[in-house]
Amino acid sequence: NHNTDTNDTAAQPQTTLTPDELHKLDAFWRACNYLAAGMIYLRDNVLLTQPLERMHLKQRLLGHWGSSPGLSFIYTHINRLITTFDINAIFLAGPGHGAPGVLAPVYLEGTYSEVYPEVSQDLEGLRQLFRRFSFPGGIGSHCTPELPGSIHEGGELGYSLSHAFGAAFDNPDLIVTVVVGDGEAETGPLATAWHSNKFLNPVRDGAVLPVLHLNGYKINNPTLLSRIPHDELASLFRGYGWKPYFVEGEDPNTMHERMATTLDACLKEIQSQQAQARLKNQPQRVIWPMIILRSPKGWTGPEAIGGNKIEGSWRAHQVPLPGVHDSEEQFKMLETWLRSYRPEELFDPDGQLITSLRAVAPQGNRRMSANPHANGGLLKRELRIPDFQDYAAAVALPATTRAYNTKPLGAMLRDIMQSNPENFRVFGPDETTSNKLDAIYEVSKKLWLAQYLPEDDNGGELSPDGRVLEMLSEHTLQGWLEGYVLTGRHGFFATYEAFVHVIDSMFNQHAKWLAIADTLPWRLPIASINLLITSTVWRQDHNGFTHQDPGFLDIVVNKSPAVTRIYLPPDVNCLLSTANHCLRSHNDINIIVCDKQEHIQYLSMDDAIKHCTKGLGIWPWASSDQDAEPDVVMVGCGDIPTKEALAATALLRDRFPDLKIRFINVVDLFRLSPEHEHGLSHRDFDSLFTINKPIIFNFHGYPWLIHRLAYQRTNHDNLHVRGYREDGNINTPLELAIVNQIDRFSLAIDVIDRVPGLQNRGAHAKQAFRDRQIECIEYAHEFGVDLPEEDHWLWTHDHTPQ
Amino acid sequence: NHNTDTNDTAAQPQTTLTPDELHKLDAFWRACNYLAAGMIYLRDNVLLTQPLERMHLKQRLLGHWGSSPGLSFIYTHINRLITTFDINAIFLAGPGHGAPGVLAPVYLEGTYSEVYPEVSQDLEGLRQLFRRFSFPGGIGSHCTPELPGSIHEGGELGYSLSHAFGAAFDNPDLIVTVVVGDGEAETGPLATAWHSNKFLNPVRDGAVLPVLHLNGYKINNPTLLSRIPHDELASLFRGYGWKPYFVEGEDPNTMHERMATTLDACLKEIQSQQAQARLKNQPQRVIWPMIILRSPKGWTGPEAIGGNKIEGSWRAHQVPLPGVHDSEEQFKMLETWLRSYRPEELFDPDGQLITSLRAVAPQGNRRMSANPHANGGLLKRELRIPDFQDYAAAVALPATTRAYNTKPLGAMLRDIMQSNPENFRVFGPDETTSNKLDAIYEVSKKLWLAQYLPEDDNGGELSPDGRVLEMLSEHTLQGWLEGYVLTGRHGFFATYEAFVHVIDSMFNQHAKWLAIADTLPWRLPIASINLLITSTVWRQDHNGFTHQDPGFLDIVVNKSPAVTRIYLPPDVNCLLSTANHCLRSHNDINIIVCDKQEHIQYLSMDDAIKHCTKGLGIWPWASSDQDAEPDVVMVGCGDIPTKEALAATALLRDRFPDLKIRFINVVDLFRLSPEHEHGLSHRDFDSLFTINKPIIFNFHGYPWLIHRLAYQRTNHDNLHVRGYREDGNINTPLELAIVNQIDRFSLAIDVIDRVPGLQNRGAHAKQAFRDRQIECIEYAHEFGVDLPEEDHWLWTHDHTPQ
Ligand SMILES: Cc1ncc(C[n+]2csc(CCOP(=O)(O)OP(=O)(O)O)c2C)c(N)n1
Ligand SMILES: Cc1ncc(C[n+]2csc(CCOP(=O)(O)OP(=O)(O)O)c2C)c(N)n1
Ligand SMILES: [Mg+2]
Ligand SMILES: [Mg+2]
Repeated sequence: NHNTDTNDTAAQPQTTLTPDELHKLDAFWRACNYLAAGMIYLRDNVLLTQPLERMHLKQRLLGHWGSSPGLSFIYTHINRLITTFDINAIFLAGPGHGAPGVLAPVYLEGTYSEVYPEVSQDLEGLRQLFRRFSFPGGIGSHCTPELPGSIHEGGELGYSLSHAFGAAFDNPDLIVTVVVGDGEAETGPLATAWHSNKFLNPVRDGAVLPVLHLNGYKINNPTLLSRIPHDELASLFRGYGWKPYFVEGEDPNTMHERMATTLDACLKEIQSQQAQARLKNQPQRVIWPMIILRSPKGWTGPEAIGGNKIEGSWRAHQVPLPGVHDSEEQFKMLETWLRSYRPEELFDPDGQLITSLRAVAPQGNRRMSANPHANGGLLKRELRIPDFQDYAAAVALPATTRAYNTKPLGAMLRDIMQSNPENFRVFGPDETTSNKLDAIYEVSKKLWLAQYLPEDDNGGELSPDGRVLEMLSEHTLQGWLEGYVLTGRHGFFATYEAFVHVIDSMFNQHAKWLAIADTLPWRLPIASINLLITSTVWRQDHNGFTHQDPGFLDIVVNKSPAVTRIYLPPDVNCLLSTANHCLRSHNDINIIVCDKQEHIQYLSMDDAIKHCTKGLGIWPWASSDQDAEPDVVMVGCGDIPTKEALAATALLRDRFPDLKIRFINVVDLFRLSPEHEHGLSHRDFDSLFTINKPIIFNFHGYPWLIHRLAYQRTNHDNLHVRGYREDGNINTPLELAIVNQIDRFSLAIDVIDRVPGLQNRGAHAKQAFRDRQIECIEYAHEFGVDLPEEDHWLWTHDHTPQ
Repeated sequence: NHNTDTNDTAAQPQTTLTPDELHKLDAFWRACNYLAAGMIYLRDNVLLTQPLERMHLKQRLLGHWGSSPGLSFIYTHINRLITTFDINAIFLAGPGHGAPGVLAPVYLEGTYSEVYPEVSQDLEGLRQLFRRFSFPGGIGSHCTPELPGSIHEGGELGYSLSHAFGAAFDNPDLIVTVVVGDGEAETGPLATAWHSNKFLNPVRDGAVLPVLHLNGYKINNPTLLSRIPHDELASLFRGYGWKPYFVEGEDPNTMHERMATTLDACLKEIQSQQAQARLKNQPQRVIWPMIILRSPKGWTGPEAIGGNKIEGSWRAHQVPLPGVHDSEEQFKMLETWLRSYRPEELFDPDGQLITSLRAVAPQGNRRMSANPHANGGLLKRELRIPDFQDYAAAVALPATTRAYNTKPLGAMLRDIMQSNPENFRVFGPDETTSNKLDAIYEVSKKLWLAQYLPEDDNGGELSPDGRVLEMLSEHTLQGWLEGYVLTGRHGFFATYEAFVHVIDSMFNQHAKWLAIADTLPWRLPIASINLLITSTVWRQDHNGFTHQDPGFLDIVVNKSPAVTRIYLPPDVNCLLSTANHCLRSHNDINIIVCDKQEHIQYLSMDDAIKHCTKGLGIWPWASSDQDAEPDVVMVGCGDIPTKEALAATALLRDRFPDLKIRFINVVDLFRLSPEHEHGLSHRDFDSLFTINKPIIFNFHGYPWLIHRLAYQRTNHDNLHVRGYREDGNINTPLELAIVNQIDRFSLAIDVIDRVPGLQNRGAHAKQAFRDRQIECIEYAHEFGVDLPEEDHWLWTHDHTPQ
């Protein structure tokens, strides 16, 4: 059933490699395999110049052998392609746990020693390399940021292919080779990422050459794709819109020839497709080639122990001979295995790869490990950003007008797109229009290379060379965006708040990547990930409970403060100022929370700039404690919570004109935390929030987050936070606010309850506020909308003392 | 290019329906479409017995029309299949926002009125139905738990297919029909869920009949799958291992005939495949039928406004005539559209569906909306659980032995599997062996229906009727598990801690489902989701930073306290007791955090039962404050943090014999929170944790979570929490602890710093502890393992006063 010796797509003449080429390729690959195994087992006698002894072994054997020989096989062959055809390529390893298979060629081609001179090209360097691999204080066993040439760590499986496409966009000369594990291919994110081929413009983008690495196994199981009939597998990839080439077998020499022939054919096809499209300057959908490489897991490793198959089995996944310390048989097998690569033929006595083999690898920046695309900061150009003030909403008097908060941002993004036609992209899961950013389409449509229908002309906003990418897969979009910025470009992703949780784990992994990359001086800073979270919890008027989830922020605060930023601009001008700041930043993940509906406008552009630069501040026009001790500090954070806090302030100021209220708005959430780079000093915090007055904090998200950020603040015991309490369904906006007690009435009641001296006096007011809540809910249930007087509420500047 | 009039798989005689059947089917469908549109627009004049006037309209128009007619088309046809062949079926709507298309037939077949008598089968009932749809205080616009027959809400897209398979497992007579949106099909989770067919055993499981609903559009975009060539699409689904049947067109009568013919063919195929396999009792892989239904989005709705296509376009997604309030033209179109269904032919003057049409729907429990499988609590049988004490680890003296924590649980799961061969399943992403639960395989293997190789016999643990499900897709597993328990069965899912974030959003959605279901008396309780989180942050000895993420708990605490539970059993016996409790619980999501490696054993089974029942408690043998005021409260929560806290206690007791230390271990995390059902009373909390002594709390996860749970506790200001601070790489266990300051030395130093009177006296000890930390790290960096004396540390009972 497993016809491992046919190649169904390409008729192969089997003469691609001269005997000398074949010999050298194989020798280079043997050197890789030797190093990969060496990393796992050896701490000394690194070239086996002496008989192997137990003291040469690492005490603890860690690492993943199984994936490694396949990875270095592919790497070596791509190297041949680069040297033969002078192409510009990078390499992504989906099963990043196979790092030995990538570390080995990266070391052999010299880059590793250039970046880390202590790991030199000699015996001592080899010892260093072996020793530090998967060793405390050393280097990881995945394709971590420390690995030159890596832009994909492959710790959490599933994102290699979307990363690869992100890297290829707008890099017309680049060929992104990406190895997809057959286990990895079972994950959801990977399974849909194959459709990325419908978003690759052959004129303007580079190519992605995926190699599905069908080594047959995962940790302990066979893989699905390796156990379906050949035709079914071919049909699957044709259905995904690829042209699959099969390279199958296990005899190294035959496989070298097959791989070389197939890669030549793929390259030719890629180049001719590109040439054709570019000649006519006509982007259209291409059925791109891809390779299905079926080879044994743990290829060239030990065949079996005690009748248990290792090579070509899941037993090869990690350390194939785990018992070398205790078992004489395994110890002997290890030596035989290591010597089977004939290290003495590959390295000179000083430990350097012999001269003739060094030529197998490309030179200088053509080495995939030294390719600047894999160190995007090297190539990054600053984004040209028009003056964000040009998109300002006119705000003559604070809180007296309304506007759609995200709309002007759409216009700003449009003009950024216009000014950066080659290194800026906008991403959205079919929601760009819904999120009111559709002004972008005035300069660039949604990229669409699949079929067109006549009606698309009428408002479809599709184009084969659009620069807005929309697909209903948050995973794929985030993967594209990451790949795009990791290779030195800029991007913006807007998505619904509730469903940003779909990419929680991707956020985590990218934050971890950035935190490590930040510590590596040779990795230059890349653009930040900019994530607009919109269609938020407070405005799910008909989507209900499933669409109410502001908890992504709780994920964000767990990650390194060096790379995380959270902003909650309450209006148009604050959003513009924030977005401008974020788009200019680097090595961060910026989360901007801002709803897409019509909201009250608080600040003029001048005020917004000052406010957002401070990150938080008193709004004097709303406050009644000018230069005095406040009785209470009222805080709004987020658009709707700010509106409700302000309306509560108005209620209170009308009812208790002597009450001294300080009104604060928070945009930059991390100002609250003393542990974050953006955190206010205790001195500043205490002076703003006082050290002894009640603080009523109306928050956009789950209320506990504020306690978490501020628990070390002096006045923490007086901090009373309101936020989303996981209480909702089909509600009008005000009704939802009331149910979760972030509404104006609840807040006003909170103040009465907390301010000394108001408790008794305030009983009448409290009752009136409660009555009003009931009226509001009754009205909503009767008419399906909020009571107009409350809904249309605006600030009346009669209160204002100035 | 769009050959919409061919059906490439089935040769259709086109005579499946008699004219009368055709007429009735179409009439029933028209009634559905009328109701769906009515829900969106009308508040009165519900059968249009009077001319339509503006006052009959809802003030705010909410709802999704586009998906609805397709959904009710499919629903109606499945009803025909049920009545014709007396099959047992349920219905899942992937695009759950098309709820009007499901609410309508559910109401028409009478179930809705049985569950909600106020929505009766008459004019008033129709008014009620229309009014409450997508209305504050009313019902949601998705297939929410409130909808009888629903087990899939479809708010967050992507999980319909995995839910469907979960429902089909071990339900040999059930046919699960599931509509997959063509937009939904672009999500990662959905894209890989098609492979679930390789896990469906034709002997023992039911069938899943997916209908890919190719209505061509999402919110504002065409869908990928509707815009690739017909052959490519067919190839994709053949590659996924299905036999696709195409039903394409838009003329209702033709489409009825095609759909009926195709469904008959599919059913026949399903039944014959099942019969064959069952006759021989030979489970093997089946190429199951599926349907690709290509029909216009917003089918039968308004065709266009002002030259803008609506029917068959993305413009039909929500409210197709949004301007009816202001535009005379649209208002007229609305009336014409509604009348086009000829309600007067469908309903009698009292508002009831006419008798002849009522027979189109099945009767009693054959109605998909009344099928007990969709209200799993009705069918749930209690799990037979052997006495968990039988798996106990012998612990004569606390903290003096070691064992692998998860291994005995594997044995217990094995025996549960044995005793519940039809309603219990274990799920894992290729990690069951890695997580040391492989004892299960002694009674049931991993289900594998794809190809076999000879070597599988040797340790592969595969079988075509295994009951352990392993696929490298956390999404698919979680979806299967949810579908399985929602239909009344029991399950257990073990997964790596870092990658459980992959299913954050699925957890969120299921928690929301349960929170609502809990409030519906007619939905009987279902089994809890049991999630073992293992391979935890503190033992990533070679995987490093990407595998260190205990933040899932921060997601969990945001959801309703009524349905969330978190346990951190520190040893074998606590884990067994906890698992026993969780497996017996219902309507919860139980998170059990417990590492898979060898760990110290603290409690005998007797003690463990008492401890876990209390959820937390003092360990007297570790404490030195018996019946006295403690100087400090030391808390461990989680396996490794408990070990380190205990080792710190030993260090301190040796060094400062007069120091009174109270040692507490926490298993049930929510005991800490006063807001949770499990929360300790303030009285109990204060007596355990004191109201004025320093508390050094060593936590498994991110430290802030403890503050969040305990910020309302009296002694909160004295609570000092240690936990994972996002600081890690390749580390030995003790090194990682030191870096994050949860190690014995850091904790001992914390105590010296916090206990009044120790600060000066303790300087010598502090310095000794710091020195020891340095020695430990030096040793780890030299030998790659921890200093044996520290690593092998066990409690010495010399300290113990008793
Ligand atoms: C999302 C996710 N789930 C689980 C794991 C744990 N894991 C690490 S390697 C592996 C198997 C990978 O198999 P494959 O992709 O075939 O790689 P190979 O080693 O065979 O090259 C698994 C399940 C992971 N890293 N990421
Ligand atoms: C994971 C996720 N992302 C985004 C959305 C927002 N959303 C709601 S409906 C929809 C389009 C669905 O299209 P399709 O599945 O084709 O359903 P149709 O309405 O066409 O039947 C989108 C993107 C969502 N609900 N879930
Ligand atoms: Mg594999
Ligand atoms: Mg659709």
